[in-house]
Amino acid sequence: MKAVLLTIGDEILLGQIVNTNAAWLGDRLALAGVDVVRSETVGDEREVILTALDRAYEDGELVIVTGGLGPTHDDITKQLVAEYFGAELIRDAKIEALLEQRYTARGRTLTASRRSMADVPAGFEPLANPRGAAPGLWGEREVEGRRQMIALMPGVPYEMKAIFEDSVEPHIHERRPGAVKHRTLLTAGRGESDIADDLGDLETLLGPSVGLAFLPSLGTVRLRVTARGEDADEAQARVDRAAEALRERLGSLVFGEGQTSLEEVVGELLAARGLTIASGESCTGGALMARITSVPGASRYAQGAVVAYSNEAKTDLLDVPQDDLDTHGAVSEPVAIALARGARKRLGADIGIATTGVAGPTGGTEEKPVGTVWLGIADASGERALQLRLFPDRELNIAVTTTLALDLVRRRVLGAGAEFGESTFIQS
Amino acid sequence: MKAVLLTIGDEILLGQIVNTNAAWLGDRLALAGVDVVRSETVGDEREVILTALDRAYEDGELVIVTGGLGPTHDDITKQLVAEYFGAELIRDAKIEALLEQRYTARGRTLTASRRSMADVPAGFEPLANPRGAAPGLWGEREVEGRRQMIALMPGVPYEMKAIFEDSVEPHIHERRPGAVKHRTLLTAGRGESDIADDLGDLETLLGPSVGLAFLPSLGTVRLRVTARGEDADEAQARVDRAAEALRERLGSLVFGEGQTSLEEVVGELLAARGLTIASGESCTGGALMARITSVPGASRYAQGAVVAYSNEAKTDLLDVPQDDLDTHGAVSEPVAIALARGARKRLGADIGIATTGVAGPTGGTEEKPVGTVWLGIADASGERALQLRLFPDRELNIAVTTTLALDLVRRRVLGAGAEFGESTFIQS
Repeated sequence: MKAVLLTIGDEILLGQIVNTNAAWLGDRLALAGVDVVRSETVGDEREVILTALDRAYEDGELVIVTGGLGPTHDDITKQLVAEYFGAELIRDAKIEALLEQRYTARGRTLTASRRSMADVPAGFEPLANPRGAAPGLWGEREVEGRRQMIALMPGVPYEMKAIFEDSVEPHIHERRPGAVKHRTLLTAGRGESDIADDLGDLETLLGPSVGLAFLPSLGTVRLRVTARGEDADEAQARVDRAAEALRERLGSLVFGEGQTSLEEVVGELLAARGLTIASGESCTGGALMARITSVPGASRYAQGAVVAYSNEAKTDLLDVPQDDLDTHGAVSEPVAIALARGARKRLGADIGIATTGVAGPTGGTEEKPVGTVWLGIADASGERALQLRLFPDRELNIAVTTTLALDLVRRRVLGAGAEFGESTFIQS
Repeated sequence: MKAVLLTIGDEILLGQIVNTNAAWLGDRLALAGVDVVRSETVGDEREVILTALDRAYEDGELVIVTGGLGPTHDDITKQLVAEYFGAELIRDAKIEALLEQRYTARGRTLTASRRSMADVPAGFEPLANPRGAAPGLWGEREVEGRRQMIALMPGVPYEMKAIFEDSVEPHIHERRPGAVKHRTLLTAGRGESDIADDLGDLETLLGPSVGLAFLPSLGTVRLRVTARGEDADEAQARVDRAAEALRERLGSLVFGEGQTSLEEVVGELLAARGLTIASGESCTGGALMARITSVPGASRYAQGAVVAYSNEAKTDLLDVPQDDLDTHGAVSEPVAIALARGARKRLGADIGIATTGVAGPTGGTEEKPVGTVWLGIADASGERALQLRLFPDRELNIAVTTTLALDLVRRRVLGAGAEFGESTFIQS
């Protein structure tokens, strides 16, 4: 099945909004085994949209449209698609009642233009929108022996995603032979090419009809396993076999699977063991604790942090010995350990985690160039520090440091060592 | 001048990378007065790319291509464009020498495939790439009385932006009559529609041939003023007149102009006055100090922070009276003030800034629903707290709270009140 993505909206074309929908849909459609031929963005203009539909059906049988389904006068997508499909717009009484209810409950008026969200092109199927007012739409027809399918969804990403998963994906699966299944393993601390080297020959490892994609981002790499089969059971068996082989090979490098994040995994782990955590941060400036507390319910395990940017804050609030600062400098093993110990003690936490480094872009020396970072950790079983060698970029250094610090906490709590080679970023 | 954007690369089409280039180019071309008709992404495939070029020149005279200029075998853009324009690829000795120099300096080999980056389609102009190896290209021809222009740039955003600004933009300006100038005013704390209401009739305020776009994001709104004129001087005079009229009307709501950020503006202000800052954070979990210290050189003014997530951390590390916590709760005016006072004192800073609130998604009560946040500030001149009413979303609440806290610091240091109406988010 070949598909074309069509994004409609001046605000996207003019760059006022970045088109994240296209990336999300491209990814999801590829995972569903659909061949996405191209992706196009056009403004809210009649002729341009009609031409785009014509060209899309020259290239594929499925067109996925986002944007332009709301009640404002710019939102002409539905009218034009109805016209293109030769289908009259008919008011759907059930949707109208839902809209009436929705607006009344919020104390707002269902104006005539809002009411038009209940109009459905004849023969189209409305797709429930669990997160907003405008429903999605699915249409199909045969033209000169060729099938034309279309899915219309609102442009608001979280509404679009819900409609896609609830309704559009199932429609696609019904209409294509064979099946595709996927699993995504999440790793932290090791670079993409190092992992590829470790894995060796992929075909042997993964088995037939299975592919592997490496998706790196800020110290993590997602490994996406995709398997095809004659039916869902075969595809599932293949993807499971490959994913388990990968997990076995990668050991503790894999911190989770699917849609979760490292901060969620670490949070669950701490909550499950009844442990609390505190951070003593220098170069990350609070970004580590901000990431830990970005997870709903983090107050179960997050005690807090001391961001000790100045040396006085290090000595006064985290009891870092002035001697260590004088002898070794703020970016050093003893100071990393003292920061972790101080955070643990002062905030009364089970685990203290610390960062100190030269984030850049300036402040580097020959001995400690920009990108030199120490992580420290302290808990009931002892204290440890690790030196990292990162990048010339400040933003990147801060982000990757928070990832590696979270992974250090995870390994410490699990008692997991570095069975699968050292981290790419750890200075040995 | 009508233009079509063409992004080439499987990794974009499959959603492994979000296409931020298209948004950036859409914005910059609109500012240059170019009418961007549509934007298309295609994979690294011969037939698809040739068809895309055909269709692009049906719709416009300028095609801006990004991606597929590197040395790997997937990167076929240049070959296909040369073929489309009927131009032979000719090795450019000057570019080849530059490549030789570049790779040798890095101790790497200029392989045959890398050397092909020096190939230029006959009649095309190479565009210097100050940030990478592959040069950009500019080509033009006349086909059946119609002009066809093309700009080719690498897909790496920071290389692409440099080539666009250095070479492509000037080419566009030479080829279109008239001139366009723009200025962007940055505001924080007031919603888009409130600002629009405050401004009243825009045509009267801005003058002829001037447009205004509102670009909202996480508690800030950028106001982009665009003026056209017969020449650059006229356009500049118009944009300056309009921007000054806006600045006068908006007063202290405007915190800066152009590419700067609120954290940079606040940082400059603190550094210029020799003031230091510390934060006492509860609901923002360190995100406020992380934002302050994201600016290079922040150690000039950032002392640090105490992230007091637990109540014990609030009392032990920031001296919040247990009485206040018991009587008013952690999310309250007295606690916000105590957190600011404690951060200022314990970290020895001139200014203490504090956040405490119900970030959500759970934890709300009827009296203090999710989105209830208090900001506290303390300095030599006194102490103050403000109550915010924000959103049901945790991530959004944390981000907007950091914006409003930074703006509170700015106003406090400037001695600027709220001459231009209250913030949209402040509970009065």
